[in-house]
Parts: sequence; C-alpha cells; structure tokens
Amino acid sequence: MSKQRIAILGAGPSGLAQLRAFEAARRAGVQDLPEIVCYEKQSDIGGMWNYTWRTGLDKNGEPVHGSMYRYLWSNGPKECLEFADYSFDEHFGRAIPSYPPRAVLKDYIMGRIDKQAISKYIRFECPVRWVSHDDSTGKFTVTVMNHQTGQQESSEFDYVVVATGHFSTPNMPYFEGVEQFPGRVLHAHDFRDALEFKDKNVLLVGASYSAEDIGSQCYKYGAKSVTISYRSNPIGFDWPQGMEEKPLLAHFEGNVGYFTDGSSKAFDAIIMCTGYLFHFPFLPDELRLQTHNCLYPDNLYKGVFFQSNPKLIYLGMQDQYFTFNMFDAQAWYARDVMLGKIALPEADERRQDMQHWLSHYAAQTGCNAAIDFQAGYIRDLNNATDYPEFAVEKQADLLKEWLLHKQENIMGFRENAYRSTVTGTMASKLPARWLDIKDDSLESFMSLDFAENKAFDKVD
Amino acid sequence: MSKQRIAILGAGPSGLAQLRAFEAARRAGVQDLPEIVCYEKQSDIGGMWNYTWRTGLDKNGEPVHGSMYRYLWSNGPKECLEFADYSFDEHFGRAIPSYPPRAVLKDYIMGRIDKQAISKYIRFECPVRWVSHDDSTGKFTVTVMNHQTGQQESSEFDYVVVATGHFSTPNMPYFEGVEQFPGRVLHAHDFRDALEFKDKNVLLVGASYSAEDIGSQCYKYGAKSVTISYRSNPIGFDWPQGMEEKPLLAHFEGNVGYFTDGSSKAFDAIIMCTGYLFHFPFLPDELRLQTHNCLYPDNLYKGVFFQSNPKLIYLGMQDQYFTFNMFDAQAWYARDVMLGKIALPEADERRQDMQHWLSHYAAQTGCNAAIDFQAGYIRDLNNATDYPEFAVEKQADLLKEWLLHKQENIMGFRENAYRSTVTGTMASKLPARWLDIKDDSLESFMSLDFAENKAFDKVD
Repeated sequence: MSKQRIAILGAGPSGLAQLRAFEAARRAGVQDLPEIVCYEKQSDIGGMWNYTWRTGLDKNGEPVHGSMYRYLWSNGPKECLEFADYSFDEHFGRAIPSYPPRAVLKDYIMGRIDKQAISKYIRFECPVRWVSHDDSTGKFTVTVMNHQTGQQESSEFDYVVVATGHFSTPNMPYFEGVEQFPGRVLHAHDFRDALEFKDKNVLLVGASYSAEDIGSQCYKYGAKSVTISYRSNPIGFDWPQGMEEKPLLAHFEGNVGYFTDGSSKAFDAIIMCTGYLFHFPFLPDELRLQTHNCLYPDNLYKGVFFQSNPKLIYLGMQDQYFTFNMFDAQAWYARDVMLGKIALPEADERRQDMQHWLSHYAAQTGCNAAIDFQAGYIRDLNNATDYPEFAVEKQADLLKEWLLHKQENIMGFRENAYRSTVTGTMASKLPARWLDIKDDSLESFMSLDFAENKAFDKVD
Repeated sequence: MSKQRIAILGAGPSGLAQLRAFEAARRAGVQDLPEIVCYEKQSDIGGMWNYTWRTGLDKNGEPVHGSMYRYLWSNGPKECLEFADYSFDEHFGRAIPSYPPRAVLKDYIMGRIDKQAISKYIRFECPVRWVSHDDSTGKFTVTVMNHQTGQQESSEFDYVVVATGHFSTPNMPYFEGVEQFPGRVLHAHDFRDALEFKDKNVLLVGASYSAEDIGSQCYKYGAKSVTISYRSNPIGFDWPQGMEEKPLLAHFEGNVGYFTDGSSKAFDAIIMCTGYLFHFPFLPDELRLQTHNCLYPDNLYKGVFFQSNPKLIYLGMQDQYFTFNMFDAQAWYARDVMLGKIALPEADERRQDMQHWLSHYAAQTGCNAAIDFQAGYIRDLNNATDYPEFAVEKQADLLKEWLLHKQENIMGFRENAYRSTVTGTMASKLPARWLDIKDDSLESFMSLDFAENKAFDKVD
C-alpha cells in the first residue's frame, strides 16, 4: 500500500500545530508516517503573526492574509496560550511579563518550530486555487498556484487539513453616505500604524476585540478623539478622557456621522471593526464549511472533522478564548485519526456527539461559562491523545481573571502578571505603564528591566 | 445542433462591448444567435467605472475591482473614446467640454447600454472560480461563486471571453524600511479621496498615468507637497510650486525617504503608482495569458484570440491610448468569428500575422508612433466588420494634440476643447480652471455654463 498523503493548507499557528503534531510522532518513533505537503500563501511561516506593511493584495496579487498591526500587544495573558510541550521559560530562559508585544510572542511561537525539520514540507507562495473530491477514489485533488515558478501544481491527497484561519476576510457593512466621506474608510484588517491617526478624530464601528484594541492603540498614539459605535451593547469599559462609546451609526453627511441616539460628530477617519467572513474560495459547495464565528460551529465533529466528508479537517474555526494550545489539541487529535490510532465513529454517532456539544453550548450564558465550555472542549480532545498534560481548567480561571482586569482598567490591564500553569513561574510585572511603552520591538521590550520580580519565582 | 454557448467574464467596458456587439447583430436581424451568459463580480455593470468607496476586498470578500478615485476626470479627450454608434451629441443633446469628470463619462458609457435588453444575460455577484477546457469535447467548463445564492454554479460553454481588465491587481514593490514607515502606505488602486492627504507631504512612486494624475489630484485638493519618484526618466512636466520629481527611492528610515541622488525628504504618506499585474486566478496555466502591459501582447491573434486555444478570447488586454472604441473593434471582430462570419485561419497563419504586428510594434519609437500603431490595429479590425465607420486616424491626431497640451500645461490641459470625429461637434470650453472646479458630480458639472461655445457648432 502506498503512503497516505496529507495536504495542510496554511502554515500559520494551526497548520504549524498540525506539522508539529506529526513531528512529535516521528520523534516518538512512529514509523511509516504519511507524506505531508503544506501549502502556504505567504513567503514565510507564521500566518497571522507575520506582520506585513501591505494591505489589500500581496506582492503576488493574492488577498493579504495578515490583520496584524504595529504596536499590537497580546490582548490576553500569555499564560493562557502557553504550549504544554514548550514553555515560556524554555524559550526565554527567564520570566517576562504576561502581555508581550507581537514580536515577542511571535518569537515564542516560532521558537518551538524546528524550521529545518518542517521546512521540507512547506511550499511557500502557493495559494490554493481549487480542491475537488473524487467520490469513486476517495481522494482529494488540490490545485495551487506556485508563484515562485509561475505555474500551477495539482496533486492527490487522502486528507486535506484546512488551516487557513478565519480572521482575514473583512466583513464590511455599508452605511448611507459613507461613499462621500472625505477621509480614509478602512476595515480593521487594513489597520497598520496608529500614528496615521495622530491628532485625528477617529470613528470605530464595532464593539468587539478589534474596536477595543485598535481604539486603545489610537488613544495611546495620540488620536485627538476615539469614538466607538456599537450595535447592541456598549463595550462598557471605563474609557479615558477622549474616548467614548455611541450607539449605532445611522448615516453620514460629508464628514459627519449621525447616530441612532440623535447625536452627531465630525470624523477624519472611519475604521470598521465589524468582524470577518469565513471565506474559502478554493472549496466547492459540498466541502465548504458555512458558519458564523462561535465556539462550536456545526458540522465539525470534535470541532474539526467535516461531517459529510471527515477526511476533510478544519482547524481553528472556533471563536477563540484559547488559541495556540487549542490548535495543538485539535492537531494532535486529527493526527491520531489520520494515523488510525483513533477510530472515527459513524456519521450518526458523530452527529449525536455534535448535538451533545451544541446543546451544551446553547445552554451557556455569559463569558465565564463560555470560557469553561471551550476549556471542556480542549479537555475532551486532550484526554484522547498523548499531548502533554496541561492545566486547561487553571488557564480558564486565568481568562476569567483577565476579564476582570480589563474591567478594572482597560488601559492598564496589561500591567497585571499571572503564574504559568505549565511551569509555575510567576510572570514579571511590566516595568512601566503600557501607555508609556511605545516601542514594541523585540529588542526594545526584552531590554526592559524585569528584575524586580526575580525570574523563575517558581512554586512547587 | 444545439445553440452555441458563450461565457463573457466581466460586465465592464470590454464585456459590455461584447454584449453590445451581439445585441447589434440581433437588431440587424441575425437569427439563431448563441446563448450568452455574462458573469460579473460586482453588483452592477460598469467595471472600473463603478466607483466604490471600498478598498481591498469587497462585501463578498472578493478583491475589489475598481481603481477609480473621487474627483477623477477623464485624462484624455472624450473625442478619442467616442463610440461610433453612439455619439456624445446623441447622449447629452448639447456640446460639453472635452474632459468630463468620471460620473459624466460613466453616464455616457452607460447611456448606450439598453439595460433591460442586456440585463437578462448578466449574473451579478458571480466571481469566476475556475475555468477548465475538455480537449475531447472542445468545451469549457466555467465555475462561478454566486454570492447572491451562496452556491456555486458550473456550466459548459463553446467560447469564453475574458473581459476582466488588467488594471485591478496592484503591482506593489518593496523598498527597504517601508515596513517601519509611520503613516499610510497604499497602492494607487486603493486611492479614493485626495482630501485624506490635505496638508500632507505625499510621496508618489512611479512615473506613469497614475502618478501624474493622483499627484495632480493631491495638489488640487490641498496636499502640502507632492513628490514623484521615477525609476528611469522623470515625467518632465512643468509642475507647479509644491510638486517635484525625484529619482528612485533607495530606502526609508522612519518617515524619511532617501533617494538615489542622495537627497531625502520626510513624508506623511506613500502612494505606490507602480502599475498592475495581469492576474487571472481562475485560469489554468494552459489557458492563462502571460504578458506585461504593452500595445501588442504576444499570443493573441488580432489582439484577442488566444493562440493555443482561439475559442478563448481576451478583450482589452492591450495598453491603451484608445479605450472604449478599441474594445468595440475587438468585440465586433470576436463576435463575427463566433458567428462564423469570419473564418479563423490556422495556427501557422495566425502566428505569422502576430509576428508581422510584433515586428511592426518593435520598430516603433516614441508616443506618436505608438498612437499610430494602435490606430492601425483598430483600423485592421474595423475593416473586417460592420462596426460603423469612424475616423480612427483623426482620433489618433487628437491624441497627439493631447500629449502636446499636457506638455504645455499639466494643470490646465483639461481646459482644451476638441472637435468630435463622429459628429463634427466642437466641444465646449471648460468655463473655469480645472484646478478650481472641485465638485465632480454629474449634477454639478452639467449645471456649469458651457454656453459661450454655442452647442452643436458643427462642421460639415
């Protein structure tokens, strides 16, 4: 029998987790591993964590994947995304603060990747053009555009792992008059440098993480005013002077936005923080996941196996309290199914399992319950694999603390420190106010003095 | 025998020309016309002429087609793009100036389209996903995503007409340090409203139409300074105070651009006017035109029939002195081939014909010769069809005048008026300086007083 072939679409956090999962099996001595090809649109690994100055389309004319901006810091505690098989201590050799800037976090994520070991699997600058499934052979055909050669490539696979993310394709609503607005109108996906909005009156539309964080960025880097417009409920933090929330936009006249409470204000720029679309232009209808952003998309058994064709695997399609270690949990489980270590039940049984989770999910209310739900989901996956034990429930508790800390001080929550659930190390305190640390580079951040906390203040 | 089926990809100027060509045949009494389906990504006809406030990706997550900006006026005389079968006089009922704003020109282009007659052929919000050709049946299969239904559709066709344009996918070069530039970096494709750059120091990279026109727009709407960086040669116009040309960028440090002549300047924004890529993500290698922007792309017999499969037809892939009436010339010729009125010669003969034109093209030097070359190409097409006679050589002479008028006064060339080669009508003079007319709406422009010229000052 010829080797099984697996296509992984994307070499970002979830695709890399899948590669890492197979690499872990190889190191554990598993023989006859499948042949893996990972197709990546960008020219490097990292997915969303590859910051790019580009917006719109990339150098090959493909939609830019990244939604990262300069000066982005982790908006959740790093202790909640720590890999069980690669701790922050192992990577940095000392304690660092709980909310590192983008470059520092990326350094950590990439640190566990043996670039040499995995690079042979990855084909860069190869966006996927089309995937088809032949019901008679049971195989997928994946066609990619290899921009490095200028030629397309098609190949057959037994499994396809979709790891292309779902925070790349903007959802961009229309408001009457916006086409006449005499300034920049952009989606959060295209936001790059808050300094562009210094001394400006900025309107952010939306009330989720993007609005909250980009609004805070604009405030930090000198916007004249920041207005956040919500549809249903205000975010409700105790915003500093110069930031305010307003209800939904009704329309624009020139540079003036009119809101449903009858108020109005003139703006210099509009940033739509209105979320993302699930967008898989390379998948035919019968293989395409159709969902909104939630903690349990339907038709994915164990959150990953596409119900009507479980050899099609989707990673990371959930809304995310947990991120990297959830992708690991999914990737390890998916690996064990692909290796035949875990037998996939029949369709009916899979449907029952999904219904169980869906009704469990529907019964939850509030953020804390949602965090526990996702922790329970990860626990369920990890119980079935050899992924190193980690205290997902303790991480859930940290996430609940995080929510409280944001409520206490939205401009200062990143000054809190938490204890690693993996190593027990207490994070350093940020040595200055987040608002005052404006250089977000790896070098600059790592040269700050974290000493006061004494590194490796471990508990047993 | 079942009816032939033709797919037209795109309902912009060239796709509409193809629809119009068949409609003209129908009105002329031609029986048994083929069945036509036109797939359009946008939700309306007009292609590039559909101004959109959106940038990057559209409401369906598809790349935005339009590169149009607010305040765009025709940058060439309208007399050089007049349709032979639908004059400006017929549309407006009176003389108007030679360089109308976007909305006025669009009104004209759309005026000859019988929306009701053609709307039955067009499927809106249907970007093409994939085209394949079956060599055994000789048929194409076209698969589109119908965003109105959320489902894909596949259908077989005898001919495919690619009318998707080639000024939509940015060519975006990298310059060292640009990723650290603390302001907006955009491609001309994403430029929308010059008012965003009021009181700013703007750098434009490139020395072709986009740089020249967007630079002029920024100047007109109050940029503090406009700097144009060229690679090979300066554009060389007599720029007003506040605009200057510099040689190629070497790199950036912070907000300062360094040029190869050793000079440097601080900027607030960078607009890359660096051209476009030919981008056909829906075509397999063997059907995909590969060319750069020039007056005679190789492998297109008569500029339209793809050499290795002439049932695949490309419209408007040339660089353009002539535009709308060149698309007409191509569409009428392509129609007559599809209807069997013109027999396509064998591959060898087509190759010889292309070689003739290619060597003719290679022997040309200078803009005037290039204009004559394209006029000759159009003449060659029109001689073979029943497209109404128009004086393409006289239009070529107008284009040469246009070049001189730009040289004389780049900020005032739009104040010149030319005589229609179709009706003999002399255009009105612009009643004020172009720099002083800042409202570009159809209503505002058409309410200007053009009377001084006396409408319909015809010659016989």
